[in-house]
Amino acid sequence: MIELVGFDGDDTLWHSEGYYQAANGEFERILARYVDLTDTHLHDRLLATERRNLRLFGYGAKGMTLSMLEAAIEITESRISAADLHRIISIGKDVLSHPVELLPGIRAAVEAVATRHRVVLITKGDLFHQEQKVDSCGLSDLFHRIEIVSEKDERAYQRVFTECAVRAEQFVMVGNSLRSDIAPVVKMGGWGIYMPYHVTWAHEADTDFAAESSRVVQVAAPDGIVGALSMLDARAA
Amino acid sequence: MIELVGFDGDDTLWHSEGYYQAANGEFERILARYVDLTDTHLHDRLLATERRNLRLFGYGAKGMTLSMLEAAIEITESRISAADLHRIISIGKDVLSHPVELLPGIRAAVEAVATRHRVVLITKGDLFHQEQKVDSCGLSDLFHRIEIVSEKDERAYQRVFTECAVRAEQFVMVGNSLRSDIAPVVKMGGWGIYMPYHVTWAHEADTDFAAESSRVVQVAAPDGIVGALSMLDARAA
Repeated sequence: MIELVGFDGDDTLWHSEGYYQAANGEFERILARYVDLTDTHLHDRLLATERRNLRLFGYGAKGMTLSMLEAAIEITESRISAADLHRIISIGKDVLSHPVELLPGIRAAVEAVATRHRVVLITKGDLFHQEQKVDSCGLSDLFHRIEIVSEKDERAYQRVFTECAVRAEQFVMVGNSLRSDIAPVVKMGGWGIYMPYHVTWAHEADTDFAAESSRVVQVAAPDGIVGALSMLDARAA
Repeated sequence: MIELVGFDGDDTLWHSEGYYQAANGEFERILARYVDLTDTHLHDRLLATERRNLRLFGYGAKGMTLSMLEAAIEITESRISAADLHRIISIGKDVLSHPVELLPGIRAAVEAVATRHRVVLITKGDLFHQEQKVDSCGLSDLFHRIEIVSEKDERAYQRVFTECAVRAEQFVMVGNSLRSDIAPVVKMGGWGIYMPYHVTWAHEADTDFAAESSRVVQVAAPDGIVGALSMLDARAA
């Protein structure tokens, strides 16, 4: 039987990736003043810089901003003006201060799940920014625990299982990322409710995990979560 | 009786502020090419930028780097070159990748305390960077819990007390910052072992808390911690 249900934060409880994609659009408009975008492979180069820096910066908007600055300097061969680099810093600040907007129906879904299971919020990224989002989301009282982790890997999930005194087989994770929310949990013997978001960061989309496992149910929107949980609960029993 | 002993990370277990001060020195050398340092109040202006950005960035080297970039652009009125801004990004990367060096004697002190008390590591700042430091410090097995928090305020300490099922009066915090390690704990009814580090960030030094409380013992080095703890244990009994 399922004991504990984990919810991802970004793009599962609240909108997030759209702000990052808007930031990418702004970045592109600034760089267009310096380079011909048709043969620059701008997004590939930015993604390569972000990936190279992940081992130093971790996830989150501050690391993204530093990678954007570095990529802009490299791509323009140092021709970019300080004023335009300042604009890139402002892009990052905008991402850090965007309003927290819940996905439609997610509050009702978390409340419904919480009537029968312990629920935990497991979110990845910058501690300070994630705490601010948790504080503003208005859902934090529903959660038994709130875990902000730097990477959603087996080690991080194992820590949650230990804190909550459950085994992997008693745990369902709800999230929009196959790579971070679903694959490691299923690999450990747990269960997943995969709720894709309409946009996904290229790094997060990079997984060979297939959602067709019998341990995963895919839903289109929050109103499918309770039904999916019942299905998994029956399979786990 | 004391049940739980908390240790700060930066400048209590391992050296940290020296790397930030070296970064400030590099920053100054770069800015000296653009402005007359004798009448620029460089450090005041950088500190003002950092403080203004704390509410968006939180603590840590990534936020410091973004603030340095912003301050450099503002102080030079956008005259600074992209190449020099790239150098400032490298300064930040150096801070993020510095080796973790323990303070002399701290391992023995933590080991000695851990024979009679539960010990927890309570460190502030960037989650990803702090995790890397904790992983490399070689002491993590000694700690009952490791708590990385975005701010060391009463709320954060209360969370630790709840996790560890102790009251404030049963807790001693060991650290180099009166503002973050000692003042909030003493205010809540706990105890402090204040071990000043030879350099302190101006923001951290900004406190009107006086260490002369009977709930605080000051030590000069890690080899004084066990004795100080015995004193506080006697006072708490």
